[in-house]
Order: sequence, then C-alpha cells, then structure tokens
Amino acid sequence: MDSINTILIAGACHGNELTGLELVRKWSENPKPLIARGIQIDTLLANPEAARKNVRYIHQDLNRSFSQTELSIEGSSLCYEINLAKKINAQFGPKGPHTKTDFLIDIHNTTASMGHSIILSEKNPFAMRAAAILTREFPSAKIYFQPEAREESPYLGTIARADICLEVGAQVHGTLRASLFESTEKIVLRILELAALWNQNGLSSFQKIPVEIFTQLCDIDYPRDSKKNITAMIHPNLEDKNYSELKLGDPLFKTFDGKDILYSSKIVESVWPIFIGEAAYYEKKIAMSLTKKSIEVW
Amino acid sequence: MDSINTILIAGACHGNELTGLELVRKWSENPKPLIARGIQIDTLLANPEAARKNVRYIHQDLNRSFSQTELSIEGSSLCYEINLAKKINAQFGPKGPHTKTDFLIDIHNTTASMGHSIILSEKNPFAMRAAAILTREFPSAKIYFQPEAREESPYLGTIARADICLEVGAQVHGTLRASLFESTEKIVLRILELAALWNQNGLSSFQKIPVEIFTQLCDIDYPRDSKKNITAMIHPNLEDKNYSELKLGDPLFKTFDGKDILYSSKIVESVWPIFIGEAAYYEKKIAMSLTKKSIEVW
Repeated sequence: MDSINTILIAGACHGNELTGLELVRKWSENPKPLIARGIQIDTLLANPEAARKNVRYIHQDLNRSFSQTELSIEGSSLCYEINLAKKINAQFGPKGPHTKTDFLIDIHNTTASMGHSIILSEKNPFAMRAAAILTREFPSAKIYFQPEAREESPYLGTIARADICLEVGAQVHGTLRASLFESTEKIVLRILELAALWNQNGLSSFQKIPVEIFTQLCDIDYPRDSKKNITAMIHPNLEDKNYSELKLGDPLFKTFDGKDILYSSKIVESVWPIFIGEAAYYEKKIAMSLTKKSIEVW
Repeated sequence: MDSINTILIAGACHGNELTGLELVRKWSENPKPLIARGIQIDTLLANPEAARKNVRYIHQDLNRSFSQTELSIEGSSLCYEINLAKKINAQFGPKGPHTKTDFLIDIHNTTASMGHSIILSEKNPFAMRAAAILTREFPSAKIYFQPEAREESPYLGTIARADICLEVGAQVHGTLRASLFESTEKIVLRILELAALWNQNGLSSFQKIPVEIFTQLCDIDYPRDSKKNITAMIHPNLEDKNYSELKLGDPLFKTFDGKDILYSSKIVESVWPIFIGEAAYYEKKIAMSLTKKSIEVW
C-alpha cells in the first residue's frame, strides 16, 4: 500500500452509537489531539439526523448504503440515508480508485461484549499490521475478518482506499460507557500514530507476530415458529461468550419452555460466535455471527 | 391486608422489555404453572402495539399513564397509551377501593445491573413480607422503596389494591437474556405461592428478618452545557455499581475531556445509586436515582 495522506474518522454512522458520536464531536471542536505527521485528518459525524433522534437510522441503515449500485441511483431519493450516503461519498470519496480518502476509521458500538473488535473487510497491508500491533498493545482488541468485494460492499469504510471498522462493546445503544470511551479514544489516536509510522518505514520497526484471526463463516437466526416469532433465546451458557469456542453438541439456544438446542453442523466442528444477541440485529434476523479462528503471522 | 383473591401478572408495559413480554405470552398460551390455591390469576400483555414495534411506547410512557387525573380524561384521545390505560383500568381496575385486582405483579427490564429489584410504592403488609422472603431465597433480589401517593401515582401497579414492580436487569431493551428469563419466571411463580400462603396463615411460618431497604431520595441528571448537551458520562468507577455506597468525594461523572466530577451534597453523606445509566431514562434526563439504605425487620 502507498503512503497514507488522508484519514477520515467517522462516528455516528448509526445515530445511537454514542462512543464514536461523542469522540467525533470532541475532536471536531478541538482537533489538537489528531496529530499524525504529514497526514490530513478529517472527522465526520456521519448520520446527524439519526444522532439527533438517538436512533440507529431514519429510513435505512446508513452502513448498508454505500454499494456502488446504491451510490449510482440518480436524483434525490425519498430515503434520507440514500441521499446522505451520496453526499458523504461526494465529499470524502468517490468510492473507487480516485477517492480522496486513503484510510477511514469508522467507530461503531455493539451491545455484545466484543471489546474493541477490529473489522477488516480485506487484507490491506497497513490495516493488517496496525490490527496486529493493536492486539499486542490493547488486551480488548480482537481481529474480525469479514471479506467483502469492495465495490459492492455497502459499508461506509469502503468509500476509502482502505479502512478499519472499530466495533466497541458491550455498550447499550443510546448510552455511553466512560471506560469504553477512553479506551476507544486511545486506540484511534494510536492508529493515527501507526499511520504516520507506516509512511516513514512501513512499520518495519514492529516485528510480525502470530495473531488470532476470526473469519466470518455465516450469520444464524433465532429458532422461530410458523408465525416467525422467536421460540428460543441465546443459551445462558453462551451469554457474553463472544470469541469463545463453541463445539458440536454445545448448547446454543434455550427455548421458552426450557429445552436446550445444541450446536450441530455437518461442515464445521468448532465455531467462535460473535455479535451474540446484538440488539440491532434482531430486525436483521441475526442471533449471532459464526466465525472460525486461525493463527496468522501479521 | 385482607386475603388475595385475584392477581394480575403484567408484561410489556414497555413494549421492548422482553422478559415480561415472553413470560406473559408463555403463560397466556399455557397457564398451567400459574397455580395459587383459591386465587384467580390473569395475565396481561400490557402494550401490544409497542411490543409489536419493539419500542418502549407509541405516544407516551404507558407506565406514567395511570394517575387518577389521566384516567379521568373523558372521550377518546389521540394518544394510544391514554386510551390503552383507560381500557386496562376498566378491565382490571378501576383504580380505587372497588378494583377487581387484589395484587398486581408488573415485570419490567432495565439496562442497569440491578438484578431482580422489587419496587414497592407503599408499605403493603403482603408485599413487604413477600419481598423480604424473596431477598432470602434469591441472591439477586433487592428491595427498592419508592413511596408514592397511590391515587396520583402514574404506575400500572396502582390500579390494583397492592402491587410489586419487578425490575429485571441488566438486559438491553429489545433483547432477551435466558438466565434472567428463567430466574424471573421462578421469582414470579414464588410470589404466587407466597400469596396462597398469605391467605392461609399470613406467612406466619416465615420469621421476620432484617432486610436492606433502598429508599428513593432523588433522581439526578447528567452534567450539561448551555445547549443542554451532556458533557460527562457515568464515571468508570461507578459503572454497574448499582446498590453500592457512594460517599462524599467519590467520583460520579467523567467529562469528555477526562475530568472527574465528584459526589457532593450538603444533605446526605452517603447514597446508594441505582438505575445507573439506564438507557430509557436518557430522555427523562435521569443519569441515576439516588437512594439511602436502611435495615428494617420485615
């Protein structure tokens, strides 16, 4: 990857995820801490209307509105987020080879206890090295690899040449945990330092190390009846066990009348669930995402 | 208190508080577990429209709609919850000396880690004895006394002769924790048993014991700037510390630029905060409720 000359820090892509919202608000009022030699750094409060209402989105999920197809819709839409995505793309993109933004850090929250999950949608050299270094420096940092075809990926980060999505939790949407605010602030400022070092020496002063990579396999829904009502909950044994191994035969769900539903699969013997019980994914019919763990030297 | 002949179990008074919603749904489909000799037991999914939309309420908080003043508004209202409160009051009340419901158990959730908080709005003899017994049998049970003038109290429970409000957490609104579902189920069924025993012998087979009572002092808001934006968060030291002592000089909030705001008061040296950072209270401008602890023999 070439040198990083422009970085965009985004918060409140979902209006009720307050860690990014308040960090971006703080830094836009006082950008002094945003120092990375030779790099222009901008901030973006991505969905101001949703933030004002303390909701995830107004008409549709902004972080599902940045596919090339969606961005190519001509004219003004009745959907607030389609117009907003196009405006953000015009200002900080345009998505593709001519984008103005070299690197984008998008700060999200999750109600799942996922610490500081560093989501990579592709194996970008700087993002990989930075992620590996962060896992060494911050015990709460985890690497979640969710491969995406960049052009059709709907995520905000994909309007830049490369990106990291920081998923911070557990935090209830519409609230703030000071401990997570402070640790997230440190991690974002550290990424800026690492970007400056990348431009100097490609981070060659840091040895490559074996790191745990959690790669997306699939999302699974709650068990439901014929009327589509859920019939079971995340099993008590699995509550808050993000990034822990779930083996064939381990309890996965518990029905309302107390029966265990066990993990079974013809394909994968062990999985590592994440986003367990995430509140915002109920409407997406996702009870959790299943990943596989591997060790790679990054 | 006279004998208890009718009990109403209510859930989903707030539509996105799912423990009560799913328990009431389960029991309305199969009322077999609801056994208490000689007592008629009904269930109520209190706010079906809010439950369908997985939101707290449609137009206004249903659990603030049961004051005698509000219930006396004549004719149909444009507000869904005002009409709903009157309908519920007609079916299970009417609030006052001629109510059809002797005892009401209203199941709520909180995002604060408050275990199973038993909220009493008056010192009703059965409710006090039952609460004391529950704290002995369930380590998560706490007694929160929030004195209210019953007639003008806006809470659902006040349409009955007496009531317990069960506040269950931490659980993110719009989600379910199986562990809390199961423990809440046990506690509600135990209250029914205790009501039957009350009718037999006034619970005289249980010795009175010293119990901790947390009595409401006041609610406090987040620090705000001149534009009413919050300027500080619950202090990291105070996160999840519901029902713990907070002394003069202990950190209370942390500002976004990292300064501690300490607890100070000219009146009360120690307080025991609850509802710390409750998500649904942001809009009510409540950061937490302060209580004082006492020991009483109940």
